[in-house]
Order: sequence, then structure tokens, then C-alpha cells
Amino acid sequence: MTAAVELIAEVGWGRVTTRAVAERAGLPHGSVSYHFRGKQELLTEAALTAFQEAVPADQVAAAATVDGLITLISTELGGPEALDSVLSRLMLETMREAERDPALRDRMGALLGDYRRIIAATVRTDQQRGAVVDGVPAEAVATFLAALGDGLLLHALLDREVDVTAALEAVRTILRPS
Amino acid sequence: MTAAVELIAEVGWGRVTTRAVAERAGLPHGSVSYHFRGKQELLTEAALTAFQEAVPADQVAAAATVDGLITLISTELGGPEALDSVLSRLMLETMREAERDPALRDRMGALLGDYRRIIAATVRTDQQRGAVVDGVPAEAVATFLAALGDGLLLHALLDREVDVTAALEAVRTILRPS
Repeated sequence: MTAAVELIAEVGWGRVTTRAVAERAGLPHGSVSYHFRGKQELLTEAALTAFQEAVPADQVAAAATVDGLITLISTELGGPEALDSVLSRLMLETMREAERDPALRDRMGALLGDYRRIIAATVRTDQQRGAVVDGVPAEAVATFLAALGDGLLLHALLDREVDVTAALEAVRTILRPS
Repeated sequence: MTAAVELIAEVGWGRVTTRAVAERAGLPHGSVSYHFRGKQELLTEAALTAFQEAVPADQVAAAATVDGLITLISTELGGPEALDSVLSRLMLETMREAERDPALRDRMGALLGDYRRIIAATVRTDQQRGAVVDGVPAEAVATFLAALGDGLLLHALLDREVDVTAALEAVRTILRPS
């Protein structure tokens, strides 16, 4: 799977072949083509697995509070390897490809939905114990937190002056009940 | 310029040629290659122009209040032509390409910076007149609003169940002083 992800980042989704993935992985081409129905299925599995490993769902769930979630996003985006070029290229390649491939889009959409539901549950718990502002639907806050994470990553990739940490600290502050 | 944007959306940035753009525009190839130093310059100008036309800076400035800004983002993202496939494909193609082309990345980063500064001025004005929560830096709020807009667009492209309007209304609510 690492071979597929590396190749997507290096040459672009459109130029990767199952043969090149097999070669990079040191596997016979037949064993790779036996496991996957073609290149899209192979690359889709590889990309989804890489995203799930980069931000494991159980790590998001373990954050337990909105404060913890924001710290997690801040660590993911603010660290030295945050703008890791393999992973960010993979993200850009996969989003571009998802616009063209409905099956990939559905898989990505389902993954997003999973994260959003975990975040919404955390927001709801925090609202119940008075740690997050009430009067806004937990689902809406979850949608905005998930979108904010990816939006900040995107903007930081384009403009290194984007202060991801300051933006997230502002969100942390305004989500606290006053 | 429309010809270049259409072609990027149709065949992908990497596969567009200046010759194909000239043909689509009904211009002699010489006149196109005379004006631009190669394909990257042509496509970069076309993409930047399209983004500036889609979200004109003076329209962002004219919003004048954070409430108005959120309504503008909501209209851009919530409307029927919001997920306009030419423009969203152009965005995905351009962001992917920007990861590979530093000149394009610099141009995109500068454009983002312009929008962010306009939004920050609006946030500051609203904070001074007590319409937006104080105690958070205007620049940080601007960074998060700009990133949120693009993040929501991205998530809505991947998952049509993403409720962009609800997320933005939640942000509108939590930005109001209580």
C-alpha cells in the first residue's frame, strides 16, 4: 500500500499503473492484479488506508472533549511533518480524482461522515457538561470543525504565512461558554 | 481565458496545451504563445482570473460585516451552481498543481492573503462596534473564516450530505457576543 501512495504522490494518480505499484512493492504483477479489480480499486484502497492511518478514527474518538479535538487538529496541522508532502499530495490527488470517480467520492464521503459523527458525539457530550456553547446543533459544529481542519491544511499548503495555531485557538475560545 | 479554464476542467491541468487553448478560443496559436511565456503562465493567469471573478475581492469587502460575509459564503456554497463542476474542478486541479509549481503556489498564496486581509478588516470593525466577540485576534478569525469556506466546499464536493448552511449558521451564532 505504501508503494501505491508513494507513486500517487510522485507521478500523480492518473499516471500510476498496477504494474508500477507491483514493481515498487517488489511483488509479482499477478499477485497485485489478483487482489484488486484494476487500478482504481487498488489506489482507492491505498489512499483510504493512508488517510485512516494519518488520522485514526479511534484517536479522534479518544480526544473525548472539543478542547482535546482542537489540540489534536492543531498538532496534526502545526507540527513539522504536518505539511508532509507525500500525505498532502495524496490528499490533493485523491480529492481531484474523487471529482471524476463517483466510487472514490462515495468512499471519501463515507469516511468524512464517520469522522463527523464521532466529532458530533464529542461536541454533544461537551455541551451537556457545559464545556461548549449551547444553542448550536452539535452536528453543525462537527461539520464546521471537520471542514476547518481540511481548509486550514489547504490554505497552509498554499501560503506558509497562514497561522493555523492562532486560528484554532480563536475557535477554541469562541466555542467556550462565556 | 474561458477556453483555458474549460480545458483544465475537462482534461486536467497536465494535459492542456497552449495549442489546444488557442484552438478552443478560435485564435492563432502564435497570438497565444506571444502573450504568455509558456503553458504554466497561461494556465496560471486563467485560473487566477477565474477565482477572482468567482469571488470578487470588492464583493468580499462590500459585505462590510461578518454577518454579511457569512451570508456571502453561504450563498456561494449553498446555491444550486455552488458545486459548479467547472469551477470546483478548476479549484482541485489548481491546488494539486500548486503543490508542484512554486510560482503558481505563490500566486495562490498571495490571493488568499488578499482575501484574508479584507476579512480581517471587517472582523476588526465588527469587534469595535460590538457585533463580533472580542478577545480573539481579528486575523485569527479571518484565517478561520477563509479556511472554513474552502473546507466546506471541499467536504460538500465529497459528501452531498454535508449541511453547509447549518455549519455556517452555527459559526454566525458563536461569533456573536453573548
